[in-house]
Amino acid sequence: MFADHALQALERSLGKKVMLRLKEGGGIRGTLLGFDAHMNLLLDEAEEVFKENGKKLGLIIVRGDNIILVSPFE
Amino acid sequence: MFADHALQALERSLGKKVMLRLKEGGGIRGTLLGFDAHMNLLLDEAEEVFKENGKKLGLIIVRGDNIILVSPFE
Amino acid sequence: MFADHALQALERSLGKKVMLRLKEGGGIRGTLLGFDAHMNLLLDEAEEVFKENGKKLGLIIVRGDNIILVSPFE
Amino acid sequence: MFADHALQALERSLGKKVMLRLKEGGGIRGTLLGFDAHMNLLLDEAEEVFKENGKKLGLIIVRGDNIILVSPFE
Amino acid sequence: MFADHALQALERSLGKKVMLRLKEGGGIRGTLLGFDAHMNLLLDEAEEVFKENGKKLGLIIVRGDNIILVSPFE
Amino acid sequence: MFADHALQALERSLGKKVMLRLKEGGGIRGTLLGFDAHMNLLLDEAEEVFKENGKKLGLIIVRGDNIILVSPFE
Amino acid sequence: MFADHALQALERSLGKKVMLRLKEGGGIRGTLLGFDAHMNLLLDEAEEVFKENGKKLGLIIVRGDNIILVSPFE
Repeated sequence: MFADHALQALERSLGKKVMLRLKEGGGIRGTLLGFDAHMNLLLDEAEEVFKENGKKLGLIIVRGDNIILVSPFE
Repeated sequence: MFADHALQALERSLGKKVMLRLKEGGGIRGTLLGFDAHMNLLLDEAEEVFKENGKKLGLIIVRGDNIILVSPFE
Repeated sequence: MFADHALQALERSLGKKVMLRLKEGGGIRGTLLGFDAHMNLLLDEAEEVFKENGKKLGLIIVRGDNIILVSPFE
Repeated sequence: MFADHALQALERSLGKKVMLRLKEGGGIRGTLLGFDAHMNLLLDEAEEVFKENGKKLGLIIVRGDNIILVSPFE
Repeated sequence: MFADHALQALERSLGKKVMLRLKEGGGIRGTLLGFDAHMNLLLDEAEEVFKENGKKLGLIIVRGDNIILVSPFE
Repeated sequence: MFADHALQALERSLGKKVMLRLKEGGGIRGTLLGFDAHMNLLLDEAEEVFKENGKKLGLIIVRGDNIILVSPFE
Repeated sequence: MFADHALQALERSLGKKVMLRLKEGGGIRGTLLGFDAHMNLLLDEAEEVFKENGKKLGLIIVRGDNIILVSPFE
């Protein structure tokens, strides 16, 4: 058990796959390359999930205020 | 009776189970591993509640602006 | 008659019952244990009001941006 | 005619009746006891207006971000 | 032609009639007595426009975040 | 090719016609007289576009948080 | 693998084509000429995508809070 600022978990996920759920209803999976204090995320090899016709998105920057949650795959 | 900043209750819940209710309508239960001043939460062994087909979410970071309330289980 | 910053009324309500109305439509009643400048509230013995099947919530932290108004019971 | 910061009109209304219109659709009337820079308001003898079954609310703190306008009764 | 911070136009409208359009759908016309950096406005002799049964509102403080645009009448 | 802060493009549009698209659904065209860091805009000879019955608005201040995009006409 | 602040990816996209998805439902493609910390973007040769009757928009400034994600084309 340890106290840990929530966003530091993102630092341990750099270079790894993460999944995010968006307020607009869908989700995105990709490799986390960067982030900042607003939870803006830089993802590579991103693709839509939870939707029919989920598209390949490639390299994307997601604006943090659209995000409900981020799930690192450990 | 004591005056206590609201978020300090989160500090006493580190390592313990918490339940949160989200603006989007569902809820999430998990073990609180971290938090920050925006009420961004780091949860482990998270799972959806209040919904049919509640999913296991594992380790997640919830962006604080989606949260209505957090309930520590004491 | 006196000029008083709005949130200082919360300080006088510490340890007492308060009722809050939420933007999502319901309300919550509980004992105020803490608060901060964002109107994040720490409530004990909280329970839902204004709803059928109002649940016992116990100890909760309510994120301030969900709140329409707080009513201290004097 | 004079240039006046908008919130200073609230200072002149301390101890007097004000009426406010809320984003959620209703309104509230009460005696202004306090306010802050976010337009959080402390009202006494508050009661709902513009609604059927307008309730007596007594002493309340209204979170400023719910407010469309405040009307002092001079 | 000159570069001018947007809100300085409000300063030149002090004591004059302005019309504002609100996000909630209606509009308000009144004499501008004050304003601040959030576009909170103090209006006198305010009245609703664009609506049936437009009411006389008298002296009001409009919270800036409800405003789409302000139109000075020059 | 050059790196340029987004809002500096507004500076080069001072005194020229711009068109803006609003979150509420319509659009406005006018001569840009001023702006600030929140993208609050001062427009002269403004008129509604994209709507039936587009009105002449004259001199207006548009609150920046209503704006989706601004298009300078070069 | 490297830790990288999310917005720095925008810097590497200056002068290149990017695609953005908007909260209002559509998308825009254009050449990135500038940006700032709010993710306000300056785009040239912009055009609407994902919509029937996608319009040519030319030079535009997109206010960052409308953006879900930005996708550089590398």
